[in-house]
Amino acid sequence: MSKKQQVLARSVPLDAPAHRLLRVPKDFRLGAVDPRSAPGYSGNKLSAAADLKETGRVLDELQERLFAASRSGATPKVLLILQAMDTAGKGGIVRHVVGMVDPQGVEHHAFKAPTEEERAHDFLWRIEKELPGAGHIGVFDRSHYEDVLIHKVRGYADEAELERRYAAINEFEARLVAADTKVIKVMMHISKDEQRSRLAERLERPDKYWKFNPGDIDERLLWDDYMNAYEVAINRTNTEAAPWHVIPANRKWYARLAVASLLREALEEIDPQWPPAAFDVAEQLARLQNS
Amino acid sequence: MSKKQQVLARSVPLDAPAHRLLRVPKDFRLGAVDPRSAPGYSGNKLSAAADLKETGRVLDELQERLFAASRSGATPKVLLILQAMDTAGKGGIVRHVVGMVDPQGVEHHAFKAPTEEERAHDFLWRIEKELPGAGHIGVFDRSHYEDVLIHKVRGYADEAELERRYAAINEFEARLVAADTKVIKVMMHISKDEQRSRLAERLERPDKYWKFNPGDIDERLLWDDYMNAYEVAINRTNTEAAPWHVIPANRKWYARLAVASLLREALEEIDPQWPPAAFDVAEQLARLQNS
Repeated sequence: MSKKQQVLARSVPLDAPAHRLLRVPKDFRLGAVDPRSAPGYSGNKLSAAADLKETGRVLDELQERLFAASRSGATPKVLLILQAMDTAGKGGIVRHVVGMVDPQGVEHHAFKAPTEEERAHDFLWRIEKELPGAGHIGVFDRSHYEDVLIHKVRGYADEAELERRYAAINEFEARLVAADTKVIKVMMHISKDEQRSRLAERLERPDKYWKFNPGDIDERLLWDDYMNAYEVAINRTNTEAAPWHVIPANRKWYARLAVASLLREALEEIDPQWPPAAFDVAEQLARLQNS
Repeated sequence: MSKKQQVLARSVPLDAPAHRLLRVPKDFRLGAVDPRSAPGYSGNKLSAAADLKETGRVLDELQERLFAASRSGATPKVLLILQAMDTAGKGGIVRHVVGMVDPQGVEHHAFKAPTEEERAHDFLWRIEKELPGAGHIGVFDRSHYEDVLIHKVRGYADEAELERRYAAINEFEARLVAADTKVIKVMMHISKDEQRSRLAERLERPDKYWKFNPGDIDERLLWDDYMNAYEVAINRTNTEAAPWHVIPANRKWYARLAVASLLREALEEIDPQWPPAAFDVAEQLARLQNS
């Protein structure tokens, strides 16, 4: 067994696959998830850091294989969709989980409030443009789900339009899956109290001011409406092809380990292989020696 | 002094700023650079790994400041342009240097042979589309320089056209600099022997086959022509606004430390600051407590 195979063979830190532990059931109720919990993990903050590092080593190898395979025409790719209330830790996932693999194989996009041009198109128009290419891991910090979350809460879309969008999302994501995209949908779930203390930190540290916006509190005042909008959207779009995962996120170290595990499992399911040589190795070695 | 300021204040690993050590002089001759050398560094592979890690910590903080400042309207951004012969280590720079900062703040693009659509446009058309936004570090793995390197070597462009392109590049890059882009141009320089042994490794390891293309040897057979094309292109586009750096790259650990140092120095020159609060902190804290 090579050193790299040994890395791959090492045991996983969770009791069961993260995609089973965290996958949303039928008729899901968000209130059933305790944001302080750590499903399937009996370790602590310290062990989680070590487990994350180890998972990162596996991810790094799998991502390179995925990328390599695409150079020989393999089409698989991964799309990680991150949704959450402010401060729930999307940015930390990007930095500490996605940051463990080669930037060459990552396509990250943070969706902001749509521009005038984007608003003039269907809500999926701007999403399509940011889809990851073959061999890549795409990461969406927010996504098309904003169009059924804030739009529901704020009443920017009526019920009929929201229903149309849920259906459109399901069709869109089914198309992605059919085109060899492994879609990992993640809602990071923090408690309202935890958000207060994280927002307070942003207001107490001058190096964090830039992360704060008074609008964050406006949204916070609508917390229950958001929880309801998430619950409805998750239930409406929790398809077999592209299921939802809700990650308890009060403990950042658990959320990071959980998302890293979801990525790892997705890549292991793809099981990308080093492509065979598309040339005669001996012949090329001989050419090289003479060059 | 805060912990973060202490990190920033730590001494740099090179004898002198990398941008001075490695900057290309007037009437530059590529033959004057020894690919095995390590200008300004008296350490070894082991110390270089530690120095790289330390530089990474500084980079990470500077990059976050750059990103934060852009959220308040600051326009600076960085563009790292990597050019080199095959196997010289561009990919390693992306993985081991760029990989040290938050993926959220990085825009990486690898330029391949142009598509039909791209060829139907001016050679800078596809480049413009990949320029980094404010607060970001853009990384070009190959670039518009291919249009004066392979095009010169292969005769895809005649001398008059090449001269037109050098001038167009200088105007283009001056425009980037005027728009608050710190342009870092890097040629990673390996010896022909070193390339042979690196190509041989790709032919000896099945997990490296995917990095090899028989065309790499075709290009290698034109080594001297490429060295000449680089030398001419570098001299023609070595402007005050966007100077060239040639990095001895036979020792990967030196090349990585050198490029990390160039990035660090560029960011230190920008000196991005945490933006001040654009809101009344006490007022927002009070709102938060009541929410």
